[in-house]
Amino acid sequence: METMKLAIVGLGLMGGSFALDFRSIYPKSRIYGFDISEENQKRAIELGLIDELIDMEELSIFDIIIVSIPVDKALFVLPKILDSINKDTLVFDVGSTKDPICKLLLDHPKRKNFLATHPMAGTEFSGPDAAKKGLYINKTNIICEIEKTDKKISKKALMMFKLLDMNIIYMDPESHDTHVAYVSHLSHISSFMLGKTVIEKEKNERNIFDLAGSGFESTVRLAKSSPQTWTPIFLQNKKNLVFAIEEYILNLNNLKEIINDNNWSNLYSILDNTNRIKEILKNTEHENKKK
Amino acid sequence: METMKLAIVGLGLMGGSFALDFRSIYPKSRIYGFDISEENQKRAIELGLIDELIDMEELSIFDIIIVSIPVDKALFVLPKILDSINKDTLVFDVGSTKDPICKLLLDHPKRKNFLATHPMAGTEFSGPDAAKKGLYINKTNIICEIEKTDKKISKKALMMFKLLDMNIIYMDPESHDTHVAYVSHLSHISSFMLGKTVIEKEKNERNIFDLAGSGFESTVRLAKSSPQTWTPIFLQNKKNLVFAIEEYILNLNNLKEIINDNNWSNLYSILDNTNRIKEILKNTEHENKKK
Repeated sequence: METMKLAIVGLGLMGGSFALDFRSIYPKSRIYGFDISEENQKRAIELGLIDELIDMEELSIFDIIIVSIPVDKALFVLPKILDSINKDTLVFDVGSTKDPICKLLLDHPKRKNFLATHPMAGTEFSGPDAAKKGLYINKTNIICEIEKTDKKISKKALMMFKLLDMNIIYMDPESHDTHVAYVSHLSHISSFMLGKTVIEKEKNERNIFDLAGSGFESTVRLAKSSPQTWTPIFLQNKKNLVFAIEEYILNLNNLKEIINDNNWSNLYSILDNTNRIKEILKNTEHENKKK
Repeated sequence: METMKLAIVGLGLMGGSFALDFRSIYPKSRIYGFDISEENQKRAIELGLIDELIDMEELSIFDIIIVSIPVDKALFVLPKILDSINKDTLVFDVGSTKDPICKLLLDHPKRKNFLATHPMAGTEFSGPDAAKKGLYINKTNIICEIEKTDKKISKKALMMFKLLDMNIIYMDPESHDTHVAYVSHLSHISSFMLGKTVIEKEKNERNIFDLAGSGFESTVRLAKSSPQTWTPIFLQNKKNLVFAIEEYILNLNNLKEIINDNNWSNLYSILDNTNRIKEILKNTEHENKKK
């Protein structure tokens, strides 16, 4: 396998994990990194995630550049990066919203070098220390507007994702943002607000200590996620997300009334119908293993 | 260790797991079981959870009776069980609400033989096949109104919980029901309604398959829980739970407005403050390991 030069802009959970997986599929590659935090840069070198720092004035030396920074920052940084690459460089982002970045770069002279991706992978942790080997293996990667990327360049990306055993889904940016509003972003909102409600109630934290265990811990897991990452995601996907939150609130209000009315059969049948999620998620696992 | 006769009424996740853990701490014991479903009884014997079936006409032979059935059924079954035990039998329930059962049994002639407990342990699965060895080890067990139980009898219970390395918390039934409304029952509601909202939106299940992965799976886990178990819990804890749901909805509505207003700093600080749950849960772990 050829010696590749990979640059990772943003050395957090997503970028750091890419470094680890990239090194395992291209052992001869050289990995460069940049982070706005000097502390993160230092740590990424200590952890062996990257070999050396990126000289941001010399982006033309790279074969692949991964942009793994908060989605608001990406809107400023990505156009600049595209301005300074060579004609064969693949640049891809891993952000959780796709419509704003795709719209922004639509007419960029180097649009053909860019691939819009969203690997459906992550944990609630952040920073270089959160980097996790194998994070991307067997995960779904949503790619938007592949037709706008140069064929030779997108082929390089697809080859890499294939080596990582990722399952590729193609979607237009608007559909992507609608779907993730429900499946990913609403999950985060529901978890953050559960955490907030419980913290407010249980002023005496001792009670949370004692009672955690039965279900709370997993449901509130996402409320540990980074505000730097999630504030701009929620705002960029505002249109879809506000609608999703409203539907969620309608369902909660409805359930509250049903409980208030002691309506056993209605309550039972709602819980029972929602149990379908069991089969749906089981099928997901099978689907993903099959691929 | 003496040969004990243990009866388990209700051979699901909670009862079945007790059978497994009980056998490991009292290897010479003989375990009897009853379930309203003949299928479950058969399965519990096949799985080796129980040695034989309970003759419900002969409850006086048991040292310990665990009542692990839905909380609505417990209101009918527990008084009858207490009517037919011998004077030294310990009867304890493991239900997720404590106020209704404690109120009901307040004046029962055998109140002294009963201990109201709520082990904060469980999974989203149900039935005898869900029984899990070690489910109770190192978990919190909330005991209500221990002063109403005969000292010799409660000592037998505490000894058993000690052998299971459970962390005992004492609480009055009303406080118990208020706290679990937030920490456990609201978690289940938020998860069930997340599942419902996503299923309604994503009529094409294919989309849920593809997009599951990033956070949805763990947040929706509790939506797989048994409606038989949870319908009566939600209804019995109606008063506290309706209030908790209302506070949750208020927080969701507030966050929706903040997102709608593009209020970055407010949104950021809410997410950031809620991150405190990280430290709180970390302390829980330490606390529990220390005990």
